[in-house]
Amino acid sequence: MRVVKGHGTRNDFVLVPDRDGSLEIAPELVVALCDRRAGVGADGLVRVVPTDLAPEVADQAGEAEWFMDYRNADGSVAEMCGNGVRVFARFLAQHGWVDPSRPLSVATRGGVRSVRFEPDGRVTVSMGSAELLPDPVQVSTPTGSWSGTGLHLPNPHAVVLVDDPQDAGELAQPPVVTPAESFPHGVNVEFVAVRGPAHVAMRVHERGVGETASCGTGVAAAAVVAARAAGPGAPDRWTVDVPGGRLSVLLRADGEVELTGPAVLVAELDVDVVALGR
Amino acid sequence: MRVVKGHGTRNDFVLVPDRDGSLEIAPELVVALCDRRAGVGADGLVRVVPTDLAPEVADQAGEAEWFMDYRNADGSVAEMCGNGVRVFARFLAQHGWVDPSRPLSVATRGGVRSVRFEPDGRVTVSMGSAELLPDPVQVSTPTGSWSGTGLHLPNPHAVVLVDDPQDAGELAQPPVVTPAESFPHGVNVEFVAVRGPAHVAMRVHERGVGETASCGTGVAAAAVVAARAAGPGAPDRWTVDVPGGRLSVLLRADGEVELTGPAVLVAELDVDVVALGR
Repeated sequence: MRVVKGHGTRNDFVLVPDRDGSLEIAPELVVALCDRRAGVGADGLVRVVPTDLAPEVADQAGEAEWFMDYRNADGSVAEMCGNGVRVFARFLAQHGWVDPSRPLSVATRGGVRSVRFEPDGRVTVSMGSAELLPDPVQVSTPTGSWSGTGLHLPNPHAVVLVDDPQDAGELAQPPVVTPAESFPHGVNVEFVAVRGPAHVAMRVHERGVGETASCGTGVAAAAVVAARAAGPGAPDRWTVDVPGGRLSVLLRADGEVELTGPAVLVAELDVDVVALGR
Repeated sequence: MRVVKGHGTRNDFVLVPDRDGSLEIAPELVVALCDRRAGVGADGLVRVVPTDLAPEVADQAGEAEWFMDYRNADGSVAEMCGNGVRVFARFLAQHGWVDPSRPLSVATRGGVRSVRFEPDGRVTVSMGSAELLPDPVQVSTPTGSWSGTGLHLPNPHAVVLVDDPQDAGELAQPPVVTPAESFPHGVNVEFVAVRGPAHVAMRVHERGVGETASCGTGVAAAAVVAARAAGPGAPDRWTVDVPGGRLSVLLRADGEVELTGPAVLVAELDVDVVALGR
């Protein structure tokens, strides 16, 4: 089985080319490939398949040629991933399956996403627009308790402004966010510190995972909340540092949030599927 | 750069074929390749090179055709590794560089090791013989304190017999072993529980690493100490369960300790060396 390994700000993926839409990838195979010791190792798996060969996104075939069929490392399907879609786009460009001088539309379970390749080698993806909760939320970890902002982008986030992201302490366990009914399906939590006029640093707890090196929608959410806190005249271009690297966020006047960052393909692999899981 | 990824009981390695002895692998390249997110990911790297092309083991060239040039994930050189040498042997056999129907001698920085391929697909390696410390040692973790046995095989181990390996609690931090002068260069610590007449289960803290899924010399040390505790008439063949899987140990009458276990090659990789570390 031929696959490619890549990452964006240390959020890493196994990419599985499936140009003729013939691959059935069972959850057990996803788990075995994403296993970091007995497999290839990754945060998730992305099947690269023409949209018109993927029944689940047939309605997007007119708009987007390629479907990012994203699975979490536990084998479950996922809508999309802000770091993964950049790596997906890099794969398409590096293999000559798309023209990197033109913008690209990508089909995902969360709808069509616009991607473009920057002259500096980075990749930009449109993340949609943020929907803020009307009331503040309260976020608590074993080291403290803070008032924060709840929002959907479209997945749920609670963003707390702190003096230093280390103030949150250990983030392996989920912080407690109240009122609990604000986020009935759980929430990702970002601890964000202002580093300059348009520059923040953050740490993130991803629901169901723990602390991660980078979370694309969390980075976008952090910039949205930091800009609101900065008040009128706040900059629209933000630099966001995460443990895995640096990303840029553009808050467009029309509400759309754009995320720009690196996307690197590290290796092409011939995997012995029979040996996996042994 | 063409490499192979493999593991033995979830102790995983990047194997770098170097048949003409031409590769200079800098510590920085080892670190970049072993990086689990921005690289290939492994506990260590093994260069596979003819012994007569490796000046540092020139004295072993008459005995062993191939040299296991082992490096830790931090780039430092290491003597050898009981799980790594099995994966090294599997590589040689699977690529047709040795005849698996015959025993194999492997050059390592710790001297020549004898390896044989078992009919059931596992691999056996001779680990040398254990040298026991004359006096017991005391081992303490945050959850308790135990009297244990110190030995060299040839690297240092302290083995404690417990009711359940979970009794040791968290093993990320090194247990305290006294008297401190027993192990001036640090020590690996095994917590071993008897599961049957010739069967133990263990957890291990490897010095400089933390808790690991498997440690070949630690497994051998556990069987040596369990057999001594069983007293006269103790079996010579032991099954040892580690978090990463199951191994077998033969305590030979001549003192030599043999370790048998799985060795699996998972994938062949073309690595983009320029992309590593970006």
